[in-house]
Amino acid sequence: MSSCMDVKKQPDSTAGTITGTTNIDPLPSWNEGPLKTNILNFVTESIDSSGENFITVEDRVAVFDNDGTLWSEQPVYFQFFFAMDQVRGMAATHPAWSKTEPYKSVINHDLKSLMAQGEKGLMKILGTSHSGMTSTEFENMVTKWIDTAVHPLEKKKYKDLVFLPMIELIRFLQDHDYTVYIVSGGETAFMRPWVTEAYGIPRDRVIGSNLKLEFQWQGDEPVLMRLPAVEFNDDGVGKPMSIDRIIGRKPVAAFGNSDGDLPMLQWTASNPKYKSLMMIVHHTDSTREFAYDRESKIGRLDKALDWAKEHQWYLMDMQKDWKVVYKP
Amino acid sequence: MSSCMDVKKQPDSTAGTITGTTNIDPLPSWNEGPLKTNILNFVTESIDSSGENFITVEDRVAVFDNDGTLWSEQPVYFQFFFAMDQVRGMAATHPAWSKTEPYKSVINHDLKSLMAQGEKGLMKILGTSHSGMTSTEFENMVTKWIDTAVHPLEKKKYKDLVFLPMIELIRFLQDHDYTVYIVSGGETAFMRPWVTEAYGIPRDRVIGSNLKLEFQWQGDEPVLMRLPAVEFNDDGVGKPMSIDRIIGRKPVAAFGNSDGDLPMLQWTASNPKYKSLMMIVHHTDSTREFAYDRESKIGRLDKALDWAKEHQWYLMDMQKDWKVVYKP
Repeated sequence: MSSCMDVKKQPDSTAGTITGTTNIDPLPSWNEGPLKTNILNFVTESIDSSGENFITVEDRVAVFDNDGTLWSEQPVYFQFFFAMDQVRGMAATHPAWSKTEPYKSVINHDLKSLMAQGEKGLMKILGTSHSGMTSTEFENMVTKWIDTAVHPLEKKKYKDLVFLPMIELIRFLQDHDYTVYIVSGGETAFMRPWVTEAYGIPRDRVIGSNLKLEFQWQGDEPVLMRLPAVEFNDDGVGKPMSIDRIIGRKPVAAFGNSDGDLPMLQWTASNPKYKSLMMIVHHTDSTREFAYDRESKIGRLDKALDWAKEHQWYLMDMQKDWKVVYKP
Repeated sequence: MSSCMDVKKQPDSTAGTITGTTNIDPLPSWNEGPLKTNILNFVTESIDSSGENFITVEDRVAVFDNDGTLWSEQPVYFQFFFAMDQVRGMAATHPAWSKTEPYKSVINHDLKSLMAQGEKGLMKILGTSHSGMTSTEFENMVTKWIDTAVHPLEKKKYKDLVFLPMIELIRFLQDHDYTVYIVSGGETAFMRPWVTEAYGIPRDRVIGSNLKLEFQWQGDEPVLMRLPAVEFNDDGVGKPMSIDRIIGRKPVAAFGNSDGDLPMLQWTASNPKYKSLMMIVHHTDSTREFAYDRESKIGRLDKALDWAKEHQWYLMDMQKDWKVVYKP
């Protein structure tokens, strides 16, 4: 057994890597200013074991929303673009759909008419595209889509519509031994196949909404069949609940962009042991991305905007604070 | 910022530590024999990058059931002893309970009469003791209990009724860069306060059943109130589901002791990339612990015993294979 015991500890694949360099700006895509200084100071103080704002390594938990915080979410959540692409891919074997709503609108790329059909139509598209396959089959569908699909307005792959300043921030935190989680209203199974490549976040640090599953046998093979029903909605008050259940520690840093993130930010702000960092991406850049807040149907930022101002949380102004929006 | 960037990578608190020694038996509480040899060989082969059974670090996921696998579970699950202790602690402020079932039986330590009242009585005791407090209050209740409470038959603290051979096995796996999770039918919030001290498993690697929660405000403080309803039952087919949702990888090693672990073991056995290890603790030691399997109401091992024999999974015979049962 000596060969077994001689093994050197390999790098923990779940931890971030260390740049290990000095005098290199860890946030090069952020404009200089109070916001950037505050982020740098928060992290610097948190690792200074002689200072009053030191945070132990095990308590360095940071949570990030996904849609609108790490990548774009307009004009509809990208998971819904995925759903529509799947339905169009299935249309050839479902000829009746060309005459049946809501499928007809999807096939004709008529988003306006689809939206006019309300939640019932949307849920039908989501159900058709997201259930009736195994968890493995769904993972393969998402992997294929993310590698090829292109955003209809931005004309770029969805996986390239991720925010470079936020990726730098994730990396900066991981380099200082923060454990970084995604806590999103999107589905866990939809994010997991691509977040490691896109953000450097490992598969087991992705928390999201879930569909009901059923354990079934296909011959000699156990599978998890995806059912057309939501098991858990990881949005709004769901976020502190899933943080409590899955992480089991109150975060010291939280990043969101909409009212759906407010309870997660409030939960983080109530950390009894540490000064915590709450930040909101404010979509103010109609040229490079999108500009929206209080009136938007997707990613509405209204109550959280008031709360942030009252409680001196940081607003990341996309136009002013970010040198670059997307990964080049 | 140079002081910030100069920081050395600190050890990842979530990873196991390395003993780094040679020729020391990593499993001293296991008797020599084919079972011990098989465990050692599995792990040795899995870290040999030149061999056909090599497992990449990120895929080295091992899952352990808790009740009956890592600690005892007789004559009733210890979480139920906790529930009864809480009810007795509350009895002074609920005088009517001395005349009302199922509380009366609990107060009188009459387990037999309580059991005779069936599931309805048990659920009432569980509801009374487990809900109506915040997640923080519950954590404090469990912490206080585990530090002081004593098993009525074994006359030892519950936290000392953990299986030393299994703790060695967890440590051995962690030392070889396995990520070890508990996947238990018990409640996550009940296990989390003590599993790090007891087993060396970090808080965020505990997967269990969950109660429904409600996000509430107590003055300026957000809290998660525990409701008297089960949100997710992490037993039987629930185990592969929670593994899929929370870990997002199929394990390569699974350890259980009852029919409730069978789907988790079957799920692990179906790993498409790697040879996997499935092991069952067989309670065969009426002297040092308990002896039970097919006929037991708690931790019944019947279907899984047949399946294990048919599929050449390993049975850990407590009497024959373990030199020591409990931590000294």
